[in-house]
Amino acid sequence: MAADGTLGALTLVLGGARSGKSGFAEDLVAQSGLVPVYLATGQAGDEEMTARIARHRARRGDEWTTVEESIELAAALAREAAPDRAVLVDCLTLWLSNVIAAGADVDGACAALAAALDRVEGPVVLVSNEVGQGIVPDNELARAFRDHAGLLHQAVAGIADEVYFVTAGLATRLKPR
Amino acid sequence: MAADGTLGALTLVLGGARSGKSGFAEDLVAQSGLVPVYLATGQAGDEEMTARIARHRARRGDEWTTVEESIELAAALAREAAPDRAVLVDCLTLWLSNVIAAGADVDGACAALAAALDRVEGPVVLVSNEVGQGIVPDNELARAFRDHAGLLHQAVAGIADEVYFVTAGLATRLKPR
Amino acid sequence: MAADGTLGALTLVLGGARSGKSGFAEDLVAQSGLVPVYLATGQAGDEEMTARIARHRARRGDEWTTVEESIELAAALAREAAPDRAVLVDCLTLWLSNVIAAGADVDGACAALAAALDRVEGPVVLVSNEVGQGIVPDNELARAFRDHAGLLHQAVAGIADEVYFVTAGLATRLKPR
Repeated sequence: MAADGTLGALTLVLGGARSGKSGFAEDLVAQSGLVPVYLATGQAGDEEMTARIARHRARRGDEWTTVEESIELAAALAREAAPDRAVLVDCLTLWLSNVIAAGADVDGACAALAAALDRVEGPVVLVSNEVGQGIVPDNELARAFRDHAGLLHQAVAGIADEVYFVTAGLATRLKPR
Repeated sequence: MAADGTLGALTLVLGGARSGKSGFAEDLVAQSGLVPVYLATGQAGDEEMTARIARHRARRGDEWTTVEESIELAAALAREAAPDRAVLVDCLTLWLSNVIAAGADVDGACAALAAALDRVEGPVVLVSNEVGQGIVPDNELARAFRDHAGLLHQAVAGIADEVYFVTAGLATRLKPR
Repeated sequence: MAADGTLGALTLVLGGARSGKSGFAEDLVAQSGLVPVYLATGQAGDEEMTARIARHRARRGDEWTTVEESIELAAALAREAAPDRAVLVDCLTLWLSNVIAAGADVDGACAALAAALDRVEGPVVLVSNEVGQGIVPDNELARAFRDHAGLLHQAVAGIADEVYFVTAGLATRLKPR
C-alpha cells in the first residue's frame, strides 16, 4: 500500500501457517476505504475448516460482503472486482487444492487465473500459504501440490504491484523493493 | 540490540532447523555484558536431544548459568529474570511440545507466558523454530502444533521490542523495521 | 552481484521448492559476461527428476556447458572453476542427498566442499533448497537430512561473498546487508 493509503491494483500476501497473513491482508483492505469484499475459497468440509471460516468471519466484522467460490476463481474475480471495491481472496493455496481435488487441468486453471488478474477492474489482494520451505514430502501428491503452489506464486508475484511476506504477524515487503 | 549494545527488554529470535538461531541469540546475550542465564526447555529424553543439549552447552562455555524448565516457563521467567541478568529461553517450540505432551491447557499456558513476558524484570531473549512454511502435515497433532506455534509467535512478536529471523546463520531484523 | 555486474567470488542462492531460485542464479551467471558452466548434481534416476533436468536445460539455452557430478563436488569445482568462467552448482541439497544415499561420511564431505570453495579459482554460484522451516519430520533420515542441510548452509553462507533468499521469484539479499 502506498503512503497515501492507496491500495495497489494487485497485491500478493504470502506467509506460513498462522503467520498473521489474513489479518494483515484484511488491514490492507480495510485501510483502503473501498467497499471490502471477502472472496473465500475454502469449503466448510470438515470441522477444522468450519471453525477457521467462522473465526475469520467474526474478526472481519459486518462491513464485509462475503462471496464463496472454491473453483471458478477467475470468473468470480471478473464478477466481483470493481474500482470502488477491494476484493480479498483467501486463499490461493486452498483454491489450488480444490482445483486438484476436482481433477481439473491445474496448469490451465492457473494460467486462466493469471489472465483474469491481469484484466481485473479493481484492486485485488490475494492471500496464499508458503508451503515449499520444509523437507521434500514423501507423498507424490504433496510434492505436486507444492510445485504447483510455487509456480503459481511466481506467476502472481510477477504481475503483482506489491508482494508481502508475513512472519509472526510482521510483514516484509518483497516488491517493490 | 541497539547500536550501543543494549539488549532490548524482550527479543524474539525465529528461524528454521539448524539455521544458527541459538548461536545468534547467545551472541546477543554475550554482547550485552549482563550475567548470562540459559533457560533450557528441552528434556534429555532421547539420544538426539541429549547430544544437542551437550553440544549447545559446550558452545556457550562456563560463564553461563543453566536452568532447566520444560513446562512451567512463566514461573521460571518470573524467578530468573533480573535487571543485571539476560535470560535466554531455548526454545519456545520445545516448551510448546512439552505442554502439549503433558495434556495441559495450551491456550492458557500461552496466555500465561505472554502475561509473564509482559511483567518480567529483566531482558529476555526467546528462541523459537519456524515450523509453518512447509506442506500441511497429514498428522492432525502436527497441524495443531504448528497452529499453536504460529499463534504463539504472533503473540510474542506483538509484545517484543525486537524480532529477528535467522537463515543460514544470517539474521534479518523484522522488528523494529 | 555488484552494481557493475561483477559476480562475487562465491554466491549462495537459497529458496524453497519452485521459488525461482535456479532462474535467479542463472540470471546472475548470464549477466556476469563470463563463460557459463552448469554443474548439475541431480541424477536422472526417476521421471520427475528427468523432466526437471530437461526443463532447466531448455531454459538455459545453448551457451551453457553442462557438467554432471552427483557426489565428488569438491573435485568437480576444483576442475571446472576458472577466472573467465562462472560455475553454477544446482543444487547443494541434491548433492547432499546423493552423499547420504551413497553412505559416505557426510560431515567430511561437507568440510571438503567448504575447503574447496575457499580455494576455488573463479566465481561460483551455489543453489540450495531451504528445507528447515516446516514441521519436524517423523522420519529420522529426514531429520538428519535437514540438520545436515542447515549446517551446510551456515558453513557456505559464512564464507560466501553474497547470499540471497528467493521467494516467489523475488530475491532478498541477506549478505552483505
